[in-house]
Amino acid sequence: MTIDDLIARATLEEVVLRYCTAVDKLADVDDLVSLFTDDAVLDLTGLLLPRYTGHAAIRAFFTQVFADMSHHMHILSNLRVDSRTDESARVLAYVTGMGRSRAGIDIQVYVYYDLTLRKVAGDWKIASFYEAPKLPMPESVGAVHNKSA
Amino acid sequence: MTIDDLIARATLEEVVLRYCTAVDKLADVDDLVSLFTDDAVLDLTGLLLPRYTGHAAIRAFFTQVFADMSHHMHILSNLRVDSRTDESARVLAYVTGMGRSRAGIDIQVYVYYDLTLRKVAGDWKIASFYEAPKLPMPESVGAVHNKSA
Amino acid sequence: MTIDDLIARATLEEVVLRYCTAVDKLADVDDLVSLFTDDAVLDLTGLLLPRYTGHAAIRAFFTQVFADMSHHMHILSNLRVDSRTDESARVLAYVTGMGRSRAGIDIQVYVYYDLTLRKVAGDWKIASFYEAPKLPMPESVGAVHNKSA
Repeated sequence: MTIDDLIARATLEEVVLRYCTAVDKLADVDDLVSLFTDDAVLDLTGLLLPRYTGHAAIRAFFTQVFADMSHHMHILSNLRVDSRTDESARVLAYVTGMGRSRAGIDIQVYVYYDLTLRKVAGDWKIASFYEAPKLPMPESVGAVHNKSA
Repeated sequence: MTIDDLIARATLEEVVLRYCTAVDKLADVDDLVSLFTDDAVLDLTGLLLPRYTGHAAIRAFFTQVFADMSHHMHILSNLRVDSRTDESARVLAYVTGMGRSRAGIDIQVYVYYDLTLRKVAGDWKIASFYEAPKLPMPESVGAVHNKSA
Repeated sequence: MTIDDLIARATLEEVVLRYCTAVDKLADVDDLVSLFTDDAVLDLTGLLLPRYTGHAAIRAFFTQVFADMSHHMHILSNLRVDSRTDESARVLAYVTGMGRSRAGIDIQVYVYYDLTLRKVAGDWKIASFYEAPKLPMPESVGAVHNKSA
């Protein structure tokens, strides 16, 4: 473990935390989308939802999510840098994803993130985003998000 | 991200962790109060509780909390240093606050902390402490803490 | 707080995260056991379970756990390096331990870890592992793990 490792880890963690903050804000979808590379893949098939490619598709998905939800809280933990070069890194983490829909449905999911981040013009961006349940999913997730998909 | 940033972040996180540890110990209120500046503001209006200013008021509040609760656990996550100088820093974090009152009521709240820390004689202390729900609050919180306020 | 402190903290946290990852994988018990020193003590008396000493006993315990459980998720937080030398460190942390047994029983426990790590041939290993409830335990834990003990 070197100082370089520490700085890299903190820099990568900051991007993932910014994602959580942006998705929990339920506003400013542009800020959220700017965390992804132009060609990013947001793969939600692990949650039985679609796979979205590129800013326009990712923006459309989150625009709908922001319209559906009144509260969001994504608790990040157990973040590990699985591998990295100067230009790319694979980051794994656990997330407890919680929220309430405007229809009054409470959601709580226990998932892991499997992310590839890539350096673009000096900034780390999310190039590929995969998540899947770490614990069995409750029924309520499909009730909220499949409707919006 | 520099080494200085890393050291600052770790130092600030340690203060917040010490707060969680002290509040979860449910004993030694002096140790807990020593984490705050003399003129600190503990603003719980986001939880529909009072705002306390200064060591005496903060000590009185936590003395009552420690008398009321048999268990406490404050899980810290998503800590971000929003801004900082050499003498002051704003720190944001998520906290899952849990406990059981001596009357047998279980509490679980999902909140964020918005803290200002200030360097006093070389040590970082909490100068202002604000928390508010990130997810809708359950009924049980008022049942325990409003009674004690 | 020095760079050495940061590197030590990150190195120790990585071992605890590796433990969580290995125990959540519910496979490859050898990988999990390799995180412990040969003479390690896994003391689960705080959960009203036995105390296991040495690799063979620890392997037998986790072999049974892996057979019993279909899902595991150990969320690590509030990690603190309580004290350390170049060869030994005491690490405290909170863990939310969750899982589902193959019999369909869901478990969720809120515990703290009190660990001693020791450097063995250049690698930090867990020499002593103690955990105990931070919040009152639900009934379901004994239902799953006492049966397997």
